[in-house]
Amino acid sequence: MYESTTQVRVRYAETDQMNVVYYGNYAQYFEVGRVECIRQLGYTYKDMEASGVIMPVVEFQIKYLRSATYDDLLTVKSTIRELPTDHRIEFHQEVYNEQNKLLTSGKVLLYFLDSNTKKRTNMPEELRKRLEPYFNG
Amino acid sequence: MYESTTQVRVRYAETDQMNVVYYGNYAQYFEVGRVECIRQLGYTYKDMEASGVIMPVVEFQIKYLRSATYDDLLTVKSTIRELPTDHRIEFHQEVYNEQNKLLTSGKVLLYFLDSNTKKRTNMPEELRKRLEPYFNG
Amino acid sequence: MYESTTQVRVRYAETDQMNVVYYGNYAQYFEVGRVECIRQLGYTYKDMEASGVIMPVVEFQIKYLRSATYDDLLTVKSTIRELPTDHRIEFHQEVYNEQNKLLTSGKVLLYFLDSNTKKRTNMPEELRKRLEPYFNG
Amino acid sequence: MYESTTQVRVRYAETDQMNVVYYGNYAQYFEVGRVECIRQLGYTYKDMEASGVIMPVVEFQIKYLRSATYDDLLTVKSTIRELPTDHRIEFHQEVYNEQNKLLTSGKVLLYFLDSNTKKRTNMPEELRKRLEPYFNG
Repeated sequence: MYESTTQVRVRYAETDQMNVVYYGNYAQYFEVGRVECIRQLGYTYKDMEASGVIMPVVEFQIKYLRSATYDDLLTVKSTIRELPTDHRIEFHQEVYNEQNKLLTSGKVLLYFLDSNTKKRTNMPEELRKRLEPYFNG
Repeated sequence: MYESTTQVRVRYAETDQMNVVYYGNYAQYFEVGRVECIRQLGYTYKDMEASGVIMPVVEFQIKYLRSATYDDLLTVKSTIRELPTDHRIEFHQEVYNEQNKLLTSGKVLLYFLDSNTKKRTNMPEELRKRLEPYFNG
Repeated sequence: MYESTTQVRVRYAETDQMNVVYYGNYAQYFEVGRVECIRQLGYTYKDMEASGVIMPVVEFQIKYLRSATYDDLLTVKSTIRELPTDHRIEFHQEVYNEQNKLLTSGKVLLYFLDSNTKKRTNMPEELRKRLEPYFNG
Repeated sequence: MYESTTQVRVRYAETDQMNVVYYGNYAQYFEVGRVECIRQLGYTYKDMEASGVIMPVVEFQIKYLRSATYDDLLTVKSTIRELPTDHRIEFHQEVYNEQNKLLTSGKVLLYFLDSNTKKRTNMPEELRKRLEPYFNG
């Protein structure tokens, strides 16, 4: 299992007239979580794209338990529970507020695709070698 | 069953550098679908809020089958399969492109809440009387 | 002078906790205005990009006179006052609400660039021949 | 003069199919700049709203000199050149990339408004006493 946390400050733009973060904006918080998750491994999603592999989202599920509000400093926890063995990678992601209350919880499935052919491909070696130590038995 | 369709034109702002609509922006397309779904019944979500009932999203699931691209004129189909009997309402939603290809498919669960107390409440009468004819018999 | 109008419905996502449209979202309304402005000429910005010319925004000015609110059906008026003679094109843009009150007024300067070289280029012939009739003395 | 800097990492969601940050998203970067500018004074915009004063944007001007790209760690510089003496406050704001190149430069005029009456009001005392030392002769 590989787990990573990062923080995101809620922007005014991200609130709506219900005085909470608009439900669609968590997709961005989750994105930030995944990107920093990879950066903390010593690699970057940007470098992966430069090497010819993109990671489009294929499935996204999220539950909203409590609201995030303006200026909250949120913690996004991103977990990879299983080492990818094919073109799929799944992140479990949670958002906590400063009182450590769980606000949302979700799951995101992404595919590794060759950016030219748009065909499925395996997890890039650069990422595998950094992830593997967290899953060795 | 009550079913409604509406159209949304993809904005440049909604694309990302993968040359497709960013996965998080479908939440807005789904929102537009639900809002027009209610408007086509002769009521509006805006009026519902004015009457003291808000509808926050509690669960959101979406699958991405094909990409939407810039300037596509998308069709959002929103379906209410069961007449709400308590504080919950569920929409099944799909997005199609101009070639009538299914791009994404999802499910959104919302609660009816009293906007002052934030307590769960039943579906407003104004909405119920318009929806019921589609579920009788 | 060439003038065009189009309509945009305010989304919930576009409001903020001040209960009005977030100031940054008008850039999208203006984008929609320009895109429909070109489409009404019988050409599209999408086709222009496909032909190898992109139009990045170089300057953007906007004044906020009155607020737009949720579910408002806004009218975006886009005006080209002078026929472009080089790589620059300027749009004057205004947003009105349903009571025909002026909400915002702005000016957007864009460049025509070759999408490969990113060098400045002239207005594509396909656009010029459609715009010229509105400026002939 | 009071000057403040903060950093913003470009999100994938903020890029568009031109492979750069969408022009409308700088309004959010500028917002983050202003919010952190106030926080660095030991006060927060959130507290100001809680005390009954809101700061809507009234004018916004921006020039785009160079593009920001995905994953860039941008520096937003926010400057208050003159101590507000009435309901108006003006920020000059600039965005730099990691090579310290100036990407965009802009100016934002905001009003202090009473959040209940929506009437113009003066800068809150809590903010004034923190800003004044930077402007004393």
